[in-house]
Amino acid sequence: MREFQSLTDRVLPLHIEAMRKAKLRLDNLTKPIGSLGKLEDIAVRLAGITGNVFPCVDKKCIIIMCADNGVVEEGVSSCPKCVTATVTNNFTKGITGVNVLANHANSDIAVVDIGVDADFEYGIIQNKKIRRGTDNISKGPAMERKEAIKAIEVGIDVVSEKVKKGINLFGTGEMGIGNTTTSSAIVAVYYTGNIEDVVGKGAGLTKEAYYNKIGIVKKAIEVNKPETSDPIDVLSKVGGFDIAGLTGCYIGAALNRVPIVIDGFISGSAALLASKIEPKVKEYIIPSHTSAEPGMKAILDLLGMESMLTLNMRLGEGTGAALAFHIIDAAVAAYSLMGTFEDAKIEAYKPLE
Amino acid sequence: MREFQSLTDRVLPLHIEAMRKAKLRLDNLTKPIGSLGKLEDIAVRLAGITGNVFPCVDKKCIIIMCADNGVVEEGVSSCPKCVTATVTNNFTKGITGVNVLANHANSDIAVVDIGVDADFEYGIIQNKKIRRGTDNISKGPAMERKEAIKAIEVGIDVVSEKVKKGINLFGTGEMGIGNTTTSSAIVAVYYTGNIEDVVGKGAGLTKEAYYNKIGIVKKAIEVNKPETSDPIDVLSKVGGFDIAGLTGCYIGAALNRVPIVIDGFISGSAALLASKIEPKVKEYIIPSHTSAEPGMKAILDLLGMESMLTLNMRLGEGTGAALAFHIIDAAVAAYSLMGTFEDAKIEAYKPLE
Repeated sequence: MREFQSLTDRVLPLHIEAMRKAKLRLDNLTKPIGSLGKLEDIAVRLAGITGNVFPCVDKKCIIIMCADNGVVEEGVSSCPKCVTATVTNNFTKGITGVNVLANHANSDIAVVDIGVDADFEYGIIQNKKIRRGTDNISKGPAMERKEAIKAIEVGIDVVSEKVKKGINLFGTGEMGIGNTTTSSAIVAVYYTGNIEDVVGKGAGLTKEAYYNKIGIVKKAIEVNKPETSDPIDVLSKVGGFDIAGLTGCYIGAALNRVPIVIDGFISGSAALLASKIEPKVKEYIIPSHTSAEPGMKAILDLLGMESMLTLNMRLGEGTGAALAFHIIDAAVAAYSLMGTFEDAKIEAYKPLE
Repeated sequence: MREFQSLTDRVLPLHIEAMRKAKLRLDNLTKPIGSLGKLEDIAVRLAGITGNVFPCVDKKCIIIMCADNGVVEEGVSSCPKCVTATVTNNFTKGITGVNVLANHANSDIAVVDIGVDADFEYGIIQNKKIRRGTDNISKGPAMERKEAIKAIEVGIDVVSEKVKKGINLFGTGEMGIGNTTTSSAIVAVYYTGNIEDVVGKGAGLTKEAYYNKIGIVKKAIEVNKPETSDPIDVLSKVGGFDIAGLTGCYIGAALNRVPIVIDGFISGSAALLASKIEPKVKEYIIPSHTSAEPGMKAILDLLGMESMLTLNMRLGEGTGAALAFHIIDAAVAAYSLMGTFEDAKIEAYKPLE
């Protein structure tokens, strides 16, 4: 907290006057008031975020934070650890889910090695490696506090660089075998219900492996005793470099007054931490889908958000954020291009008095 | 039923072999099996509908059935009846919600006057008028049975004509002041819970007007005694020309083996009727969003479907279907363009044994 205080003090509240004007325009479009639901909420929020009554979100980028997680040695994932490096590399080949779906949504991707246990031909993949993977959270903290700070700063920097290049809508994404376990541990710190509600089967686990995963999440919390009131303590003890980087992305987007979209469970746990570091950051965050990971519901509840999409997806990478981009684009289109009641030559549709 | 028996006998089941091959391809793409959730279901279903292992949905059209409803004289809507004609005409001006959102989804629209109490400069608007609006369902049947048949045939014909012109994905839409009341009456016939669950506030109603609407729906069912086992009886007694036309659209899409997307509550009530006329039609129908109309949940439950989007929308016109087109396109993109495990040089992500 204290480390980012002077920085996060610079996160501004949303621009009230732009939101008021956007709402006024929406209520004058040829439709019953409020009938475009969340599309209207999105349009108003984009106006508030950007301070522009006609916000533009035509330059999109999904930031994919890639890192290994020491907890994988506990058998919490159905995939071997090396898949992190392989998929990170595949992001450069255009064959992954997020490659196809980002491209389809007219979005760039930015692939960041923030802690993969492998080396790459850096270029398309940015080398922001903190270390070759975290330590095993079931035995002690994932990382030192100063590493968590550094990883958050990476996220802030990556986003700020992209803003300089004109990006005006961000998505979040990740690749890190074992990161549903670290995300579950983070959410479990803040969630007051049963731990089973926030631990899922990730990419696919047998019943036995699932119960083991629940035990590991519990153990990580018991061993590390993360301090709820100190989100950086939670992050450094039971999180990962990928989640830390994404936490920074949300803060960076808020500092730059650019909207940023949550992908799924892992990105969601980072959004939760970012909002704990600075509550105003939340106003810059747009949810996308309710993933098949059961803990996503808990995250959305804790954030006070509702998703747009329910597709039972659990791929991560930023695939859900890419799909939400279409809906956000549609919201801007409806808001900007629909006719007003004057154009339509009808009186406003209004409730009977 | 009997009137369409020989026609609906020609609705074929989905193409099992194409679906098997599509599933095989999906399971070989570089992602955990099933992790793209409903995107995978959509890809498989499109293969089954079209019989093509690589289905194409690049030529889209939303059919907008426009008609007036006699029940409007009971004060069930917050809008005057003349709004039906005005908005129908506005569809030709490009300023309505569905104009903008269909265009954004690269979709055409087809505007059909199937029973508006007004005349138009026909051309962009197709003249398929059965009559200038239905009768008041709270006093007797909306239409004669033969009118319902004719309106269904209009829907089948409109879709079949569009298929000849290359359309390979349909959306449904409507404009008809009072049509949430008729839709509620249809759903209430099949729904076993409380009537309040399936009657909503439409474009916006005061509490008093809402209770009046509930009373009118109840009265329509009491007065007409629609025969549950005969969906055309239900349609002709408590439905409308818009809903009848859409019912025909679903049947027409199934006959032509082309997928068709439900928009919201009104289109949903037509999907329900079409599936009652011929259960195989249901396999050709893809849901889009859970609208803000409370009865949409009942419809989806009765159809055994889950929506993709939850945006609290209640505009109708086909706006929800237009948004779903983006997700369907994304499903086809992911299915067609992602790399296989062979391309990715990794072993399949598989549950631990």
